[in-house]
Amino acid sequence: MSPTSDRLAALRTRLAQQGLDGFVVPLTDEHMSEYVGGYAQRLAWLTGFQGSAGSAVVLAGEAAMFTDGRYTLQVREQVDASDWRFCRVPQESIAGWLAGHAPQDARIGYDPWVHTRGWVAETSAALAARGGTLVPVAANPIDALWIDRPQPSDAPLAVQPDDLAGRSAADKRAEIADWLRAHGADALVLSALDSVAWAFNLRGTDVTHTPVALAYALVAADGTAELFVAPDKVGEDIHRQLGNAVTVRDKTAFADALGALAGKRVAVDPERAVAAIFDALDAGGATLLPVRDPVVLAKAIKNPAEIAGHAAAQARDGAALVRFLKWFEETAPGGSLTELDVVARLHDFRAETGVLKDESFETISATGAHGASPHYKVTPESNAPIRTGQLFLIDSGGQYADGTTDITRVMPVGEPTAEMRDRFTRVLKGHIAVATAIFPDGTTGAQIDAFARRPLWEVGLDFAHGTGHGIGAYLSVHEGPQRLAQPTYPGGGPLEPLRAGMLLSNEPGYYKAGEYGIRIENLMLVVERAFPHAEATMLAFETTSFVPIERRLIDPALLTEPERAWLDAYHAETLRRAGQLLDADTRAWLAEKCAPID
Amino acid sequence: MSPTSDRLAALRTRLAQQGLDGFVVPLTDEHMSEYVGGYAQRLAWLTGFQGSAGSAVVLAGEAAMFTDGRYTLQVREQVDASDWRFCRVPQESIAGWLAGHAPQDARIGYDPWVHTRGWVAETSAALAARGGTLVPVAANPIDALWIDRPQPSDAPLAVQPDDLAGRSAADKRAEIADWLRAHGADALVLSALDSVAWAFNLRGTDVTHTPVALAYALVAADGTAELFVAPDKVGEDIHRQLGNAVTVRDKTAFADALGALAGKRVAVDPERAVAAIFDALDAGGATLLPVRDPVVLAKAIKNPAEIAGHAAAQARDGAALVRFLKWFEETAPGGSLTELDVVARLHDFRAETGVLKDESFETISATGAHGASPHYKVTPESNAPIRTGQLFLIDSGGQYADGTTDITRVMPVGEPTAEMRDRFTRVLKGHIAVATAIFPDGTTGAQIDAFARRPLWEVGLDFAHGTGHGIGAYLSVHEGPQRLAQPTYPGGGPLEPLRAGMLLSNEPGYYKAGEYGIRIENLMLVVERAFPHAEATMLAFETTSFVPIERRLIDPALLTEPERAWLDAYHAETLRRAGQLLDADTRAWLAEKCAPID
Repeated sequence: MSPTSDRLAALRTRLAQQGLDGFVVPLTDEHMSEYVGGYAQRLAWLTGFQGSAGSAVVLAGEAAMFTDGRYTLQVREQVDASDWRFCRVPQESIAGWLAGHAPQDARIGYDPWVHTRGWVAETSAALAARGGTLVPVAANPIDALWIDRPQPSDAPLAVQPDDLAGRSAADKRAEIADWLRAHGADALVLSALDSVAWAFNLRGTDVTHTPVALAYALVAADGTAELFVAPDKVGEDIHRQLGNAVTVRDKTAFADALGALAGKRVAVDPERAVAAIFDALDAGGATLLPVRDPVVLAKAIKNPAEIAGHAAAQARDGAALVRFLKWFEETAPGGSLTELDVVARLHDFRAETGVLKDESFETISATGAHGASPHYKVTPESNAPIRTGQLFLIDSGGQYADGTTDITRVMPVGEPTAEMRDRFTRVLKGHIAVATAIFPDGTTGAQIDAFARRPLWEVGLDFAHGTGHGIGAYLSVHEGPQRLAQPTYPGGGPLEPLRAGMLLSNEPGYYKAGEYGIRIENLMLVVERAFPHAEATMLAFETTSFVPIERRLIDPALLTEPERAWLDAYHAETLRRAGQLLDADTRAWLAEKCAPID
Repeated sequence: MSPTSDRLAALRTRLAQQGLDGFVVPLTDEHMSEYVGGYAQRLAWLTGFQGSAGSAVVLAGEAAMFTDGRYTLQVREQVDASDWRFCRVPQESIAGWLAGHAPQDARIGYDPWVHTRGWVAETSAALAARGGTLVPVAANPIDALWIDRPQPSDAPLAVQPDDLAGRSAADKRAEIADWLRAHGADALVLSALDSVAWAFNLRGTDVTHTPVALAYALVAADGTAELFVAPDKVGEDIHRQLGNAVTVRDKTAFADALGALAGKRVAVDPERAVAAIFDALDAGGATLLPVRDPVVLAKAIKNPAEIAGHAAAQARDGAALVRFLKWFEETAPGGSLTELDVVARLHDFRAETGVLKDESFETISATGAHGASPHYKVTPESNAPIRTGQLFLIDSGGQYADGTTDITRVMPVGEPTAEMRDRFTRVLKGHIAVATAIFPDGTTGAQIDAFARRPLWEVGLDFAHGTGHGIGAYLSVHEGPQRLAQPTYPGGGPLEPLRAGMLLSNEPGYYKAGEYGIRIENLMLVVERAFPHAEATMLAFETTSFVPIERRLIDPALLTEPERAWLDAYHAETLRRAGQLLDADTRAWLAEKCAPID
């Protein structure tokens, strides 16, 4: 029996002792974070799943693992199929599955600190149809079984300087206070970690690869605030930064503070605050105003200082990538590299900038068939040698004080096949179609997404993930609310109007199971674009990542003239930007990579 | 004072007598129809608005008219601005407007036979925030004021033969019965007129341009049904067609029949059944299953007989259009034509087929600046002479027993300007981008729509309507559930997956206020498309309208090679199809119009 089988059995025993017929285990924390600290990695502990999105449902007789299209292959490699059934979202849902599989009158447990109120309502309704009930647990049963569970990080908070943030924290709080008064509300709950970090110009190291600290905040309509955080994390510099208008309180006092808001009108975000927060406010007698946290949009629309910082980070990160690509091209054909070797070497190139804070997510280093899992995560067990004839995919990013980066490139080892070049060129055509899109103010990511897919659709192919996500300013590598994706993509992101100042990734791909993966990812800034006869405010994208796109994988015959012109201009600009930061040898290599195509 | 001012004053007096502070007047009937019989044209009576979509709200001190982007110009021409404020949907809503303008504690009346339950709930909630109430009226107050209000039509029902319908009505009822049992329901309310017509293979002439009869139906899980219709409309042929399993009852007995469904589980469509139907079911003690009428999707996916009939109707209609375009090109430069002359002459060309049942909607005959109102309706007052230098836009369709058509063409009178050719060619590029789209099964119209707009977006332009709508088989010219439009377009149509067998229009446009309008509209059939390496079922469009696209308006320099190839192939096929039905003279004219471009 595998270790995860033992854990599953132990959980079932415990559930039976607690009078529960099942339990739901999502991959999030008490802030609805996408990436979570080790202490909250309950899904990985229980199932072995290493992906960044998924949920598990455990019943006495069966158990199911829910993942999206990015993890269709990976979940089968990492999770024991003799214990777990595999379900795909959004086609299947936990609510629907429980309605079909839970026993009559079942009592299914959930931890109200890791689910939204909406999820609780939907799943309760589905269970109710069979007489079942969703039961909140006072303590997560996994925590009692998980002997060596890490403690939440006690790392100190750090100040994000005003010159990088572009605005003082007091100024941001004043804007929140204006918003509260305009909405007739007395206080705002900030529960998303990046909202707290952005609003107070603070950063932390409590969550893997995302520079945030475990904290909640309450902001009042008079501009004062309470910050709930472990006291040991708050040094003198932080107290100075926060000033007199912000009271620091222990994070453990947060639920009680919510319970003390009787009679207040409290704005709280149903997507970003967990059910337990709503429960505490309800129990305390507050009036709830369920509305999107106003920091979300303010944070997504980058200010001039954040845009300048992003550009500086991109130039630095791009130069490191160029050095890496040259090294890879020269080294990989030797046949001695593995995926983990590459991860380490890429880290070094970024670290040699001298200002790398962290990677912005775990590097995806995937050779051959591993690339066909869009979010493949290399482990010592999976680590594969890089062989001639393969495509090698590398998706990575850096956290710098002035910005967050995220970029994907694919390199052939040896001679690529005609099919690989066809598919890569189609992905490139889709990438260019997005990069060159011009659209009226009010257009949503759902309207842009298909531009990326059309060249693949034309030959019966597609890719099973969105085309682009937002990105933070030295914050989350996946930042809402905007998203380029099909309109039914979960979370509403594709229906968010794009606005000047937003950053987005542009990352179409193609994945051939068992053979290879392709993805071309740059970041882009939404900008206004003037036209002589424009009848509306028009927006466009400006690409902000400058790293060559591998010419050996491009079939020029498939490109239109405007596409070639875009590619040549992109490469000329790449040579100009990255070239300034490179030694002569690397610059000469880059010049060849950036020569006009053909 | 205008006649509509008198009517508005009379309505206000009556509302005050009834103790109401306001009243809401939509443009629909007791079946939530888009096009309605004369008896239900309350909005036109009250405001003078002649468009096909809109609503009015009357308060004691002000009144507001709500229309969408198609009617921005038209509403200002037809509705008295001294009485009415103009509001644009979806940016503004009746609920939102009432919340801001109704007096504190207002009692706002509505007729529950012409609103959905969802509208009632949303509007009630908005009013409640200011202490107001939405009050159902027993009789519509406009009907008492409208002295010469037409009676509902008493035209007889007609049988739609099985060879054109492709399936017997008994077979369709059996499928509905299967669906009811699968959903654990006892009965289905059919309230949409085209659903009733399709399910029973009946047609009528009660609604302008849509061959339906005013009727409701209840279909039971045993395959029997009750048809509620004015008894005078039912001849012997209809009784034979309906058979023993269908009971004919007077339409006036419908509400009582709903009230007699105590204890039954009744499926009823919240989008297509009015609030009064829900109220009657609730009051009678039925259990409601709010779900989309299953006829909607079955009707949208055309069967082989309907597809063959559609093709025959398109060939016939296309040949009539070609004759019309030749006549127009030869006659218009003489300077003696008006918009109404053209409507009459086009009607004659269609009538000369010998099998025209009706036009499928009121012909849009719009010269010069009139074309800039996408849904311009020519009246004796607005009727304009067609002058050299104008663009002339004609959007029209025919109802034939084998199919419904809808097509738009634009012709220059004299020499078009370079700007007109640029804009027309961009609209054509968008049209071709849609016509040639290939996409995986499951793709929605929201994902296709932007293909139509991109060539306009690239120069800062756009058009303020959807790109395409479904169309019936000798039924509604606008038929759901599918639609090509931006994802936020009201009604959910853009999020409906496209399926093989659906018909859609493809009609991008460009409108320059005060100068001209452009629209190029063909119909298309969704078909499966096989690919050697396809990883999913792929769909594509097959254009089904064949009428030349005016070459004098095309700037070939703006077309890509694939776009020219599409256009040349389209014209070659047009010559082949329409040519067979034309005299030698017209065929020779058509051959010139269909020669390869350049």
